[in-house]
Amino acid sequence: MDDPVLLTGAGGRVGTAVLDGLGTAYDWRLFDLEPPASTPAGIDETDVYVGDVTDREALREAISGVGAVVHLAGDPRPKAPWDSVLHNNIDGTHAVFEVAAEQGVDTVVFASSNHAVGAFETDDRTPEMYRTDDDYRLDGTEPARPSNEYGVSKATGEVIGRYFYDHSELSVACVRIGNLTEGHPPIEYERGQAMWLSHRDCAHLFDRCLQADYGFEVVYGISDNDRKYYSIDRAREVLGYEPRDNSAAYTFDGERK
Amino acid sequence: MDDPVLLTGAGGRVGTAVLDGLGTAYDWRLFDLEPPASTPAGIDETDVYVGDVTDREALREAISGVGAVVHLAGDPRPKAPWDSVLHNNIDGTHAVFEVAAEQGVDTVVFASSNHAVGAFETDDRTPEMYRTDDDYRLDGTEPARPSNEYGVSKATGEVIGRYFYDHSELSVACVRIGNLTEGHPPIEYERGQAMWLSHRDCAHLFDRCLQADYGFEVVYGISDNDRKYYSIDRAREVLGYEPRDNSAAYTFDGERK
Repeated sequence: MDDPVLLTGAGGRVGTAVLDGLGTAYDWRLFDLEPPASTPAGIDETDVYVGDVTDREALREAISGVGAVVHLAGDPRPKAPWDSVLHNNIDGTHAVFEVAAEQGVDTVVFASSNHAVGAFETDDRTPEMYRTDDDYRLDGTEPARPSNEYGVSKATGEVIGRYFYDHSELSVACVRIGNLTEGHPPIEYERGQAMWLSHRDCAHLFDRCLQADYGFEVVYGISDNDRKYYSIDRAREVLGYEPRDNSAAYTFDGERK
Repeated sequence: MDDPVLLTGAGGRVGTAVLDGLGTAYDWRLFDLEPPASTPAGIDETDVYVGDVTDREALREAISGVGAVVHLAGDPRPKAPWDSVLHNNIDGTHAVFEVAAEQGVDTVVFASSNHAVGAFETDDRTPEMYRTDDDYRLDGTEPARPSNEYGVSKATGEVIGRYFYDHSELSVACVRIGNLTEGHPPIEYERGQAMWLSHRDCAHLFDRCLQADYGFEVVYGISDNDRKYYSIDRAREVLGYEPRDNSAAYTFDGERK
């Protein structure tokens, strides 16, 4: 990817992991609702765009000339109210895909979420499904079952992505991101350990989404955890994802064994 | 269903087919953006509610005390612009499910659409998939592939329905309605003949959605056409749907053979 890559929601947790991990490997442009406290290292101030992600004009300016968009912007709160996710996440994601398609961008990588499928974690499957001896797996082909309205908005973003994939030249990857934490997996939280995504695996996965050749994909974004109920087979096969971390490598206190 | 049943979008094409076919079998309440030109036969004027389907307060009044909601309201145009379907179809459907769940309604039947999956009709499958000797079938388990932004909004309505099914006491049926026409199937339109839904089969299918016992279902709403690429097996099995019409019973001119 020689063309610039736009990162929306650049100041959020996923954006931080991606920028920290990939750094100057890409010619980044950043888009966010608020200006960053300081411009990240290696990024020119003129590549920082500030605007609401539903503002098609602001997006047009930021997207013009980029080869790919990594779309992370949106209200990230699992308990976000409907009005906020309707605006920021659903309309915002539509705006990004619409402008990216119109501007002839090659690829949009969309940050979906485990919350798009959280209601598969039923009372009769949990906590067993979070454990290493359980073989229940979601693989990305299942229809959405959101755990909250944030999850509804993320599942809708996938539908929007599918629509634009089928009706434009865009390649689209939707990454159902697990539990991203820095340094070590969540402590005393089986579910979080099962869907842990380390910072370096997160950066690597988004890198693969920018490098690999595909059409439309829905993949799970977790590390290679012993505990898991999301399959990462599709991400390995299509994207060349090779995670290096595993929540089982850490003690219950978060120390590396 | 002894309790009243609210029909949103009552004045539209599907609402007309349902009211014509089921008449006084239910204690109807009607909800629509505009008052009806005349109150349909057998319905009391006090059971006619006028409001925007995103107006939670207006919905609360109409839904209070009903046993079921048949939710048809929305912008019905396949080419409707995003802003309209975002408001009328996505936010409107969320409002209906939200208020229905809050009010302890038993069942919401949601009018989804063939446009939620229209992009399965790819160039390499058509027109063969519209013909009787082709065995390609969609069965309702496939993730959405919308053909337009109206279809995105309908697929999103299904996701919203799934969310409320998993998080409330509601039973939810999503009916991906085919090509509803009165009298005879579309003429010289293979696709329309393959997804034809006659008025009486439409009324019968919504009747079954109100009578049958189920949790969450996505079914196709078409007659028992010889030409088909939607399976109606699930509607038969779970809902007891027994369609009586078949587009093959009509000549190319629309006469019954």
